[in-house]
Amino acid sequence: MMNQNDEQAIRELVDKWLAATKAGDLETVLSLMTDDVIFMVPGKEPFGKEAFAANSKAMKDYKVEATSDIRELEVSGDWAWMRQHLEVTITPPDGNIIKKSGHVLSILRKKPDRRWVLARDANLLM
Amino acid sequence: MMNQNDEQAIRELVDKWLAATKAGDLETVLSLMTDDVIFMVPGKEPFGKEAFAANSKAMKDYKVEATSDIRELEVSGDWAWMRQHLEVTITPPDGNIIKKSGHVLSILRKKPDRRWVLARDANLLM
Repeated sequence: MMNQNDEQAIRELVDKWLAATKAGDLETVLSLMTDDVIFMVPGKEPFGKEAFAANSKAMKDYKVEATSDIRELEVSGDWAWMRQHLEVTITPPDGNIIKKSGHVLSILRKKPDRRWVLARDANLLM
Repeated sequence: MMNQNDEQAIRELVDKWLAATKAGDLETVLSLMTDDVIFMVPGKEPFGKEAFAANSKAMKDYKVEATSDIRELEVSGDWAWMRQHLEVTITPPDGNIIKKSGHVLSILRKKPDRRWVLARDANLLM
């Protein structure tokens, strides 16, 4: 069921997400997820797009740079799942860098316009 | 792409998993996952079937009972994804009960014999 074009489109989605995050371009990041997206992180209730946007705005003075290593990617029809290892560097206004790394399991959705977007995301970074 | 039979089979897989866990029937639990299954939990490297079996054997004197609330389930071809909320009660030999709860994002696979099994699992229980 693997489709090279779909796989390539999903890899580009990840690159676009990371570049927009680094640039602090929240509008672009929000365009890369479904409206009913759900983010899961340890020790918190799952949250959606609005809470993601609010968190990002609260962090607007922090520079966030991440690199992704896509370990697995499977496409099946209009759905896909992906396992990544992320390394994240957060630079707060005071310059005291915070580094995090960990694994992420994501569900992606191909929209009717054939564009892939993030639909569900379980982020185990600690 | 939703198929009632597939959805029902996946719900039965979850019930069977929980019943076998409660009964301490590791052999049955292991039969409900792919050989290349990957488990992701906070603060640890992802691990596979062998490590799962070793962990379970190390916990053989602990009684583990869980209830699952399946919040979402999507089937697409031979793949499916599911989001659950789990409540787990662990009774160690000393009787001092431990309770955990949290969310799980899972990927399921329909094998060539048409049987659904667990393939990837991101468990955010704390």
